[in-house]
Amino acid sequence: LAGFLDGDGSIYVRLKCNDSYRFGFQVSPSVVFYQSNKKKSFLVKLMKEERVGYIRDRKDGIVEWIIGDVKSIQIMMTNLTPFLRLKRKQAKLMLDILKRKKRVKNVHDFLKLVKLIDRFEELNYSKKRKIDLSEVSKVLVKKKLLTP
Amino acid sequence: LAGFLDGDGSIYVRLKCNDSYRFGFQVSPSVVFYQSNKKKSFLVKLMKEERVGYIRDRKDGIVEWIIGDVKSIQIMMTNLTPFLRLKRKQAKLMLDILKRKKRVKNVHDFLKLVKLIDRFEELNYSKKRKIDLSEVSKVLVKKKLLTP
Repeated sequence: LAGFLDGDGSIYVRLKCNDSYRFGFQVSPSVVFYQSNKKKSFLVKLMKEERVGYIRDRKDGIVEWIIGDVKSIQIMMTNLTPFLRLKRKQAKLMLDILKRKKRVKNVHDFLKLVKLIDRFEELNYSKKRKIDLSEVSKVLVKKKLLTP
Repeated sequence: LAGFLDGDGSIYVRLKCNDSYRFGFQVSPSVVFYQSNKKKSFLVKLMKEERVGYIRDRKDGIVEWIIGDVKSIQIMMTNLTPFLRLKRKQAKLMLDILKRKKRVKNVHDFLKLVKLIDRFEELNYSKKRKIDLSEVSKVLVKKKLLTP
């Protein structure tokens, strides 16, 4: 599974705007395995074996097995880290973020967390623009949760 | 390595026209691992660890670690087969083909071998047109190695 994640998988954390959260952002961790829909049954099999996550059919013919549950991600990352080669850093960063997430007490803790989340960008060569530290800071200032 | 091969690898045998071979075709087996050139160093590392194959930079930004040597392929496929999930059938077919290849005594043995090679098409959903049994048969008839 580690080798397969290194090949056809992805580990990342995204920030989503959501006012029901204390600082206006939801921290959303994901571990995703990709495959063409011809091999969907293989992802379904893995999902049933591991008993975590769900399957999503994308419109472009790619199928995703998505694990978004914190506890499941923690268990999987802990088990796979020793065997990962390409994505070991991402797995460790994920575990670090999930641990710190629980301990966020104030806006400064939250900003430190966002800084860690930003690190995924460089590790994953991601192209999509995402909510990053500078954007979060602006929103927090606007909400008067942070002084400029 | 098995999981990584399942994700970002390919196992196949191709026939190449080559008149220096008895039946006019070279049987060319390959195990290939792919990666974007940003992660070329990882493929180089794997190659050095395994001490087989070579690296090829494609023009489209993809890097390939190619193992084409029969003995190396046999060792690797034998070691990885128990751990493969998506490509176990291809690995077994490869081992079968390499074993039969050595025992080819006449044109009928060769045609049986070509039939086995054709099976990679369905297993790999390959799109590129390749030399298949019907084409080989035509050439062998032309060369008077086979009666129509």
